[in-house]
Amino acid sequence: MSQSFEEKTIKTTPIFSGRIIDLQVDEVELPNGKTSTRELVKHPGAVAVIPVTEDGKLVLVRQFRKALEKEILEIPAGKLEKGEDPLVCAERELEEETGYAAKQLTFLRSFYTSPGFADEIIYLYLAEQLIEGVAHTDEDEFVEVVEVTLDEALQYMENERIHDAKTVFAVQYLQLRKLLTHD
Amino acid sequence: MSQSFEEKTIKTTPIFSGRIIDLQVDEVELPNGKTSTRELVKHPGAVAVIPVTEDGKLVLVRQFRKALEKEILEIPAGKLEKGEDPLVCAERELEEETGYAAKQLTFLRSFYTSPGFADEIIYLYLAEQLIEGVAHTDEDEFVEVVEVTLDEALQYMENERIHDAKTVFAVQYLQLRKLLTHD
Repeated sequence: MSQSFEEKTIKTTPIFSGRIIDLQVDEVELPNGKTSTRELVKHPGAVAVIPVTEDGKLVLVRQFRKALEKEILEIPAGKLEKGEDPLVCAERELEEETGYAAKQLTFLRSFYTSPGFADEIIYLYLAEQLIEGVAHTDEDEFVEVVEVTLDEALQYMENERIHDAKTVFAVQYLQLRKLLTHD
Repeated sequence: MSQSFEEKTIKTTPIFSGRIIDLQVDEVELPNGKTSTRELVKHPGAVAVIPVTEDGKLVLVRQFRKALEKEILEIPAGKLEKGEDPLVCAERELEEETGYAAKQLTFLRSFYTSPGFADEIIYLYLAEQLIEGVAHTDEDEFVEVVEVTLDEALQYMENERIHDAKTVFAVQYLQLRKLLTHD
């Protein structure tokens, strides 16, 4: 059996409790018996949806990200409510941000975004057989829907209008599965 | 020209300044003139390296992540020192964590990991023509090198031993480019 690298918690110091994230500093015992500190962001988790239209376009939303001080194009996503089923959250966020409802919503996988300092996990879904509707975002959320071909998505990755992990993953996924029209 | 969704900063409140991350809360003016708050984690940025051996295996490191309270398999990665060239950081982290030096180190792309609340950016490199050496990690860092085929990597994704954004992206990238041996 391989050696465990577990870090045991000696002490947890809460630093901040916010609307979206909490921050704590843990003092930990390392595998060699020494101690260190870990700065840990607690996040409720999120879903992200890869919506593909009947004519093979990827549905993105343009939005301003204060953390980056720029606008980027992302797949629709949103935070989980406490205890919420990720599938229900995926349906809601897709409809709120894009207006689309999906006849077929398939769980693809989950991943942690920043395991070095945060517990944020994203549950990723593929949305197909889309039915058009009307977007209705939260009152402090401003987004614009943009539908792109594979070539447009790859171009947006080159010029960093697409510039976040989940959306870069999504474009690559669709490229691998050949689910998008080329141009 | 499309409407800007920029959120102007009204006030920044510093909350925490740590070894790795800082936290601040910004009061912002939204595009509709209303105000809201944004909880923002500041991070120095990081590099991640996708090392592929001459016999077509992906080099991963097993490590414990306190934020997740579990061990996962990740591509080698590390934080940027202040002002450091990402390429220099990539060479250093690859050698420290795996012992390998790469004759060929190619920048692939960068992406933000959690644009909703953090400015962490990862610069991703492909490392080829690897030369074996001896790993020598930081004193509070415990890792074990694991080399996997494509089939093993896909299996590890299924059972969530591979479970973070950059590594999931890396496996998919190698699958798309057909750079790994199958089994």
